[in-house]
Amino acid sequence: MAERAPLFAAREYRDRVARLQAGMAAQGLGALLLTTPADVFYTTGFLTRFWESPARPWFVVVPQTGAPVAVIPAIGAALMGRSWLRDIRTWDAPDPRDDGVGLLAETLAETLAETVPPRGRIGLPMGQETHLRMPLADYEALRARLAPRPFTDATACVQRVREVKSEAEIARIRATCAIAGRAFARVPGIAAAGRPLSEVFRDFQIALLAEGADWVSYVAGGAGPDGYGDVISPADPDPLRRGDVLMLDTGAVKDGYFCDFDRNFAIGPASDTARRAHAALWQATEETLTALRPGLRARDVHALLCTGLQRHGATPSGGRLGHGLGLTLTEWPSFTPLDDTPLREGMVLTLEPGCITAQGRIMVHEENFVLRADGAELLSPRAAAELPEIPA
Amino acid sequence: MAERAPLFAAREYRDRVARLQAGMAAQGLGALLLTTPADVFYTTGFLTRFWESPARPWFVVVPQTGAPVAVIPAIGAALMGRSWLRDIRTWDAPDPRDDGVGLLAETLAETLAETVPPRGRIGLPMGQETHLRMPLADYEALRARLAPRPFTDATACVQRVREVKSEAEIARIRATCAIAGRAFARVPGIAAAGRPLSEVFRDFQIALLAEGADWVSYVAGGAGPDGYGDVISPADPDPLRRGDVLMLDTGAVKDGYFCDFDRNFAIGPASDTARRAHAALWQATEETLTALRPGLRARDVHALLCTGLQRHGATPSGGRLGHGLGLTLTEWPSFTPLDDTPLREGMVLTLEPGCITAQGRIMVHEENFVLRADGAELLSPRAAAELPEIPA
Repeated sequence: MAERAPLFAAREYRDRVARLQAGMAAQGLGALLLTTPADVFYTTGFLTRFWESPARPWFVVVPQTGAPVAVIPAIGAALMGRSWLRDIRTWDAPDPRDDGVGLLAETLAETLAETVPPRGRIGLPMGQETHLRMPLADYEALRARLAPRPFTDATACVQRVREVKSEAEIARIRATCAIAGRAFARVPGIAAAGRPLSEVFRDFQIALLAEGADWVSYVAGGAGPDGYGDVISPADPDPLRRGDVLMLDTGAVKDGYFCDFDRNFAIGPASDTARRAHAALWQATEETLTALRPGLRARDVHALLCTGLQRHGATPSGGRLGHGLGLTLTEWPSFTPLDDTPLREGMVLTLEPGCITAQGRIMVHEENFVLRADGAELLSPRAAAELPEIPA
Repeated sequence: MAERAPLFAAREYRDRVARLQAGMAAQGLGALLLTTPADVFYTTGFLTRFWESPARPWFVVVPQTGAPVAVIPAIGAALMGRSWLRDIRTWDAPDPRDDGVGLLAETLAETLAETVPPRGRIGLPMGQETHLRMPLADYEALRARLAPRPFTDATACVQRVREVKSEAEIARIRATCAIAGRAFARVPGIAAAGRPLSEVFRDFQIALLAEGADWVSYVAGGAGPDGYGDVISPADPDPLRRGDVLMLDTGAVKDGYFCDFDRNFAIGPASDTARRAHAALWQATEETLTALRPGLRARDVHALLCTGLQRHGATPSGGRLGHGLGLTLTEWPSFTPLDDTPLREGMVLTLEPGCITAQGRIMVHEENFVLRADGAELLSPRAAAELPEIPA
């Protein structure tokens, strides 16, 4: 089998790691330990759906200088061998006696021993939107093996780097958004009064694949008169009805990069309520896109969307109204009243306003964009200003 | 929107939780904390692809008696409200000040206060094939809030219960296997000399959806003369060639339950090497299926497969040769020389022998089955004994 070409040139990864290393230096870290699919992919280009198996932990150690070291199950050696990394250490996982802890401890100790000036601290993402993808007992064993060297939170170190996308990453996200845009354009041929929502979900996933998605990690949606009750449920088998508003939301993946946006469709003529809500969502999004600049904070975006919705006669729903996007379906920051993260040039983000349309019903709307020095540049093909109707 | 019917009757969940509670009693646990998609789905029936967003933690607390308590982000309240749980506590996530830690600490403290006799220990899966799906810093904060009550490893408590499937679960896995079986039957219409492997992966996913999968969480595979180098890589864009062996492996999902099996196809007439390897894999699987009984250990299955392969002239590959299956693509135990887990009636498992066919090349073969008192009952439609040929 010929080798799949690396997704990016080695200098892309070198640049990413150099930026992480600058953050590590500022925080006095001698090593950075990464364990999640997104962090491993970001630093190495290692892309596999095998993460779906929870059986084995995978580790990347970022040293003070130079390339990361992979400490991984032997089953990944061939694929990681195609990456830009040259130091790949493997063990036969799963091993109930020692599932990589010894090898990882040695690697970390060696990495710390090489630091100039000596730096004993190991960074590990421990904050919001992170988790440790290894057994907790193994982490405790690792800490004991490496004591008294401390583990310290490196969430900010990783997030400040990953949140600013390179042009190569932006191009990937734009490509995934275009795939979803073409799949959404097919929905009028998929959805119709009488078709079960579950069949619509199925055909929409097929459309995403047919339009070029490598895989479809996320599809959600809902349907009902004047809106839907929920935006995270799997599809029920009930047929769409004339008068429903159908919403489909997708996180399709191409080359490891996600899109995350949704579209609404009226099944038959839209009610005034649905039309007005859609117009308010669209206008609030439009005005916020125009107002966005680096230097605003995440909470400012929440305020812009809420005041925009209210100005157009809509009642904002709770929850966050957008977020980061890229290597996972959602990334930080969160457009809530509480998130102080400053927006920076190169961030890829979603605007996701929602409004209450009736008791227990909402409508949502979402677009993806990259923040440039002079404002937002859309990555998703902009939704129609008027709620599109599928004749029923 | 009408409500999706629960996947199982409430008594199914009550029985699962009663079995967990028996394990908790044996271990002296006053509460059990669960955080992963599979553990939450298992105890509540809460099924959503929204786990794809790493933004928010989700918690289920299993008390000494009675139904679990859900401590979840408000965005999940409607969906969890359709489950059998009645005590659902929510917070507005993500919240950078306190992302559910306070609410969870209160819930756990209250749960422990109700134990008779008083039991202060909180169980949490910490062992192999587990991870904690919440920020590590929040876990440390939770521990501090609940001190001196100790957290203790509850991996065995959860795994001994989850590994034995109910008849309702077995029926679900059988249904997913049947979907994949029908999709594999379409492969001769999808794969052909000259078609890029990436297009074959795409069309195979479409076939899985068309045959009834709700979504496709895993597709992997490979192609090459006399075998493939790797079984976890995404597809490369190179065309299939006459003389290749193509392998496709899938973890499709229906109603939250996975299948996990693969199939091989020769593109044009198979080489003697490929034919012999396939025959050895098939025969070793057949003989092992016949020999399987409750009471064997996981490592015995590894030995059966290895000796079977050798008896048929094949060289076993390294790594594990099968594993548990159900709510995730792979579950414990692992068919390695090191896993002592006893096989029990009702376990759903895969046999996944692999053999080395050439320098850097392997072939693999996989079937899914449930272990009954009198032996293995296949869930995947059995592969053809002879390597099927797709004319080229």
